[in-house]
Amino acid sequence: MNAPSGQPRPARGARQESLRELNLELVFRHVLAAERSISRTELAAATGLTRPTITRIVEELIAGRLVTETGSARDGRAGRPRVGLTPSRSGPAGLGLDIRTDGLAACVVDLQGTVRHLAFAPIDLEGPDAPALLNHLARMACEAVEAVAAEGLTVIAATLAVPGAVDRGVVRSAPVLGWRDVDAGALLRAATSELGLPINVDNEANLAAHGELHAAGQNQADFLYVSGGLDIGAGMILDGRLMRGSRGWSGELGHFTVDPDGKPCPCGARGCLQTYASLHAILDGQTVPAGTTPDAAAIAWADEGRPATLASIDTAATALGIAVSGALNLLDIDTVLLGGSFALLSSWMTAKVKSEVDQRVLSSSWAPITIRPATLGPDAAAIGAALTFIDRLREHPTSWLAHG
Amino acid sequence: MNAPSGQPRPARGARQESLRELNLELVFRHVLAAERSISRTELAAATGLTRPTITRIVEELIAGRLVTETGSARDGRAGRPRVGLTPSRSGPAGLGLDIRTDGLAACVVDLQGTVRHLAFAPIDLEGPDAPALLNHLARMACEAVEAVAAEGLTVIAATLAVPGAVDRGVVRSAPVLGWRDVDAGALLRAATSELGLPINVDNEANLAAHGELHAAGQNQADFLYVSGGLDIGAGMILDGRLMRGSRGWSGELGHFTVDPDGKPCPCGARGCLQTYASLHAILDGQTVPAGTTPDAAAIAWADEGRPATLASIDTAATALGIAVSGALNLLDIDTVLLGGSFALLSSWMTAKVKSEVDQRVLSSSWAPITIRPATLGPDAAAIGAALTFIDRLREHPTSWLAHG
Repeated sequence: MNAPSGQPRPARGARQESLRELNLELVFRHVLAAERSISRTELAAATGLTRPTITRIVEELIAGRLVTETGSARDGRAGRPRVGLTPSRSGPAGLGLDIRTDGLAACVVDLQGTVRHLAFAPIDLEGPDAPALLNHLARMACEAVEAVAAEGLTVIAATLAVPGAVDRGVVRSAPVLGWRDVDAGALLRAATSELGLPINVDNEANLAAHGELHAAGQNQADFLYVSGGLDIGAGMILDGRLMRGSRGWSGELGHFTVDPDGKPCPCGARGCLQTYASLHAILDGQTVPAGTTPDAAAIAWADEGRPATLASIDTAATALGIAVSGALNLLDIDTVLLGGSFALLSSWMTAKVKSEVDQRVLSSSWAPITIRPATLGPDAAAIGAALTFIDRLREHPTSWLAHG
Repeated sequence: MNAPSGQPRPARGARQESLRELNLELVFRHVLAAERSISRTELAAATGLTRPTITRIVEELIAGRLVTETGSARDGRAGRPRVGLTPSRSGPAGLGLDIRTDGLAACVVDLQGTVRHLAFAPIDLEGPDAPALLNHLARMACEAVEAVAAEGLTVIAATLAVPGAVDRGVVRSAPVLGWRDVDAGALLRAATSELGLPINVDNEANLAAHGELHAAGQNQADFLYVSGGLDIGAGMILDGRLMRGSRGWSGELGHFTVDPDGKPCPCGARGCLQTYASLHAILDGQTVPAGTTPDAAAIAWADEGRPATLASIDTAATALGIAVSGALNLLDIDTVLLGGSFALLSSWMTAKVKSEVDQRVLSSSWAPITIRPATLGPDAAAIGAALTFIDRLREHPTSWLAHG
């Protein structure tokens, strides 16, 4: 019982150098968090650092294209000119790529977290194999990098969102795509070799949850994001952080057992949520008209009040409520965001999900639970993917400054 | 979208003062992590700090009773005397109190994480009300503090483990005890006023998981601890940290839906794991002989091969496997520790739990899952409770030095 539990391993001593890093990161955080542009004087007051230290750090941040000066003079006090500082709108940027139910998406986000490019290409997932799909995405990546370069942005890294379980760039299993052990990271790296970008691959529900976290800002530090579609996944945000699990395979809500003796699931088990609440289950074998996406068909049929569709949406909502209750009992989270198809169908699903949750979550009798549609809609995963490296850079600007 | 997501709020700048704190914490971590006693020279080499800095910090740690010198001279090099340093065995200590299925426990742990006192009093939970139970625990607390004072230990704080959901000292709901909104923290503080200790109240499964984490050391950073008994709870350890949930109510595995149309549960829902796998469910209404605990009765009956008992253990294991599968699909954890009654009955349960998990957890087809009994047995929660403040002290010794 000698090893200290729950503690980081001992490291090297803190020296002058790391103090400089810490202070630079601190100043940058204040620039990022400021509602409007912030002056050097305000930074000194907010951080408690001396004016010369602030001056030196700001110089470094400007040289590294992380911060820019604004000409504005809005200090509120008359006669005193003021040079404001804001996160750069023409510095480093992040690229997000997403394989969606209905097509491919590419998105670029700048240092401020603003979406600067968003492209979508409809595609039938049943068609192309993995290399063809990733080649298509690679072309969209090149177009995105070129488009934002015209605005002075430098894309520094890309993240690919995949509806499946990912293990260090390798997609272990993505049933919707028919992928098993596909090295998507290597394939995409090869197809985008001219860009020379670091490439990261991650689960789409995780990335969508990350995107929603960004959209919610400081107002929502704990929530469960549930993504509906051909596949069902979840992303958990606890204390403002995405919980990826020990190997990044967390959030497999689609394979929660809803009924132990229920319908067989392609995964080999019985009664998985997937078999009740995937888009396939909701459409219940009815043929989707040509030129219509499965989502659009489900919405149209629910809208015209087709009894079969309404019944299967009801079944889906009940099953989702049971699975979500399990997650909430386990995690102690009080907010559920319905994403993907569940967001589109939320007006037919929310009440039913809520009634299961109110009945099955122990704490709901003394602390209410909120179920609501997600904010970013179908772009959540692409935006979250684009934010991955940008958020890392926002936290640790010194690593960028060292290489930049 | 201005607020930086997933980042700590900006704080004040790092100055000389916090540098001193960081370095003191670093040196203390190295003393704690050392397999045997460690010399000042070794500390300087390991931390990269100068010899005078080490000398000053060690003096502070010795004065604060956190570190002691050992006379040993085991440097391996002949002729060079060596004074070793170890965490103090007669400094601050933590007290853990636990309300168990079969009685009350008190435990004291020193800075090294070694159990220095462990007392148990069998008691029938159906008898005393909350104040009576907590008065009994207060007497055990006083005895514990006195017993370890004789060995030079100073108890600095106490943590009470309760089988229920706790909210800032108030037990919101503990059905096994018949408690609802009981301010256990205030009652225990009043009953132990002569000791003047800070008192913390927490869920027993959380604390037991913390105890198991300590017992496993660096070897097991991710696991799900499942506690069986009159009530069922779970504690989640991810990346070496206990996940308490947004309000500390995580781990309500007992109210996972196993069968949506199953037996009614006292919580108001149907088909909760509790109704299949609690000790009550396993004993299935059979009368426990006087002088025997429910656990002991279940083991004895399983041992003699009573068909009814074996059948209900089988049902419990299947239900537990279904609920645990949901948790593993969601959290991405590959190890499950069976604690409490489940540990005692593990030889009859493990295989069945494993078979459900292998069938229902998506990642199990490419990454094996381990199900095994917990290490600390029924004392896990009391030990984990005693460790709560001690671990905080191990991480942040400066707060103790400031007040000590």
